[in-house]
Amino acid sequence: MRYFYDPTISNETIHHTLPQEESKHIVRVLRMSTGDDLAILNGKGDLYHCVISGTEGKLVKVDITKREQYEADKPIHIAIAATKNADRIEWFLEKATELGLTELTFISCKNSERSRVKIDRLIKKAISAMKQSRRAYLPTIHETIDFKSFIESHPNGLIAHCYDEQKHHFNKVYHTGNCPILIGPEGDFTLEEVDLALQYGYKSITLGETRLRTETAALYAVTLAKTINETEH
Amino acid sequence: MRYFYDPTISNETIHHTLPQEESKHIVRVLRMSTGDDLAILNGKGDLYHCVISGTEGKLVKVDITKREQYEADKPIHIAIAATKNADRIEWFLEKATELGLTELTFISCKNSERSRVKIDRLIKKAISAMKQSRRAYLPTIHETIDFKSFIESHPNGLIAHCYDEQKHHFNKVYHTGNCPILIGPEGDFTLEEVDLALQYGYKSITLGETRLRTETAALYAVTLAKTINETEH
Repeated sequence: MRYFYDPTISNETIHHTLPQEESKHIVRVLRMSTGDDLAILNGKGDLYHCVISGTEGKLVKVDITKREQYEADKPIHIAIAATKNADRIEWFLEKATELGLTELTFISCKNSERSRVKIDRLIKKAISAMKQSRRAYLPTIHETIDFKSFIESHPNGLIAHCYDEQKHHFNKVYHTGNCPILIGPEGDFTLEEVDLALQYGYKSITLGETRLRTETAALYAVTLAKTINETEH
Repeated sequence: MRYFYDPTISNETIHHTLPQEESKHIVRVLRMSTGDDLAILNGKGDLYHCVISGTEGKLVKVDITKREQYEADKPIHIAIAATKNADRIEWFLEKATELGLTELTFISCKNSERSRVKIDRLIKKAISAMKQSRRAYLPTIHETIDFKSFIESHPNGLIAHCYDEQKHHFNKVYHTGNCPILIGPEGDFTLEEVDLALQYGYKSITLGETRLRTETAALYAVTLAKTINETEH
């Protein structure tokens, strides 16, 4: 079964018209036609089984035959400084989407290598990974926010850094619920940033003894959180 | 401190001449010169602190001032079918090297998408990741071997597949020691391959409910194994 994405589809929908890009892919690339089955994800937990009923101009029309609803994933929220090389964030997002990331926020720190991220391009990557891995939820991706504003609005998370402070093992302090994980830039957070986070209830964590690249650290944190979420299930 | 790689350096070495590629990088790119400090990893657990003593033609000569020896990592051995897209294996290897992979074997299966892998290129990727993450051990990368020969010579591992058989949770059956983890091709192992593995003492495992890409599954297995290795430490 082929999977497509359309956030506008809802539970009241019986007949639906797919957006232009998905329609084009269905007709031109996959050469599907009336009577063929497909599935639509809305990225909000619903999977719709459909059959193609026809076309309207360049748009594909479908009838919905069945709806499946999936339970929401437990939150995994990564807040990360954009890496110098944009590809590295893209592959992180692809893998993290497969593994169950629910929320990604870009933070600008003192040592950030880059302030702008192409959110639209990242959302496309996440949609593609969601379809490929058949997850029912699309992670929410937020625009860049400065470090201080983030921790003020999202207290009591975890912060990964390389300073020689007392640090906790991830597995001992991560809690399912609302526990954002802050991953620093290539040049690390500043000591002032770490202190500020601690004031807002953050705990310093270590991700093991090896030096990990920003995006590897972030993905490692996602997998650890996933394991804990599944154990507590 | 800058890190370089040279597998020929040994504990008897006092004066050493670096190979051409590393020498070129030191002189041309980094513009380092006599008296500058650097570190050399031999990929076998030793880190040598050095000072540049001069040049000999295009080669850099160093004096070794100190040697540090690192304990061997517990084995993490992934046996994987090469993905259609070579990039995906390369990034897997980069991340897995950062996270502590010790051995990688390519296996050819019924549904393999590609039989040839560029081992030399992969070794370069692994060396670069080793230097970047300052790991003291370089993972061993083996040429492609057929599925049957592999499991005959490496029994009692774990096999990840998508069939509806009884499957174990990774964390329940992974054991530190000699426990290769088989990750199938995009089209999965065949039922015959799974059966053969089970005959050789393999256990079927699940890596969670989501459909993961080959390389994501492999990296996820590495992180789970790393966590278990560190807990048992």
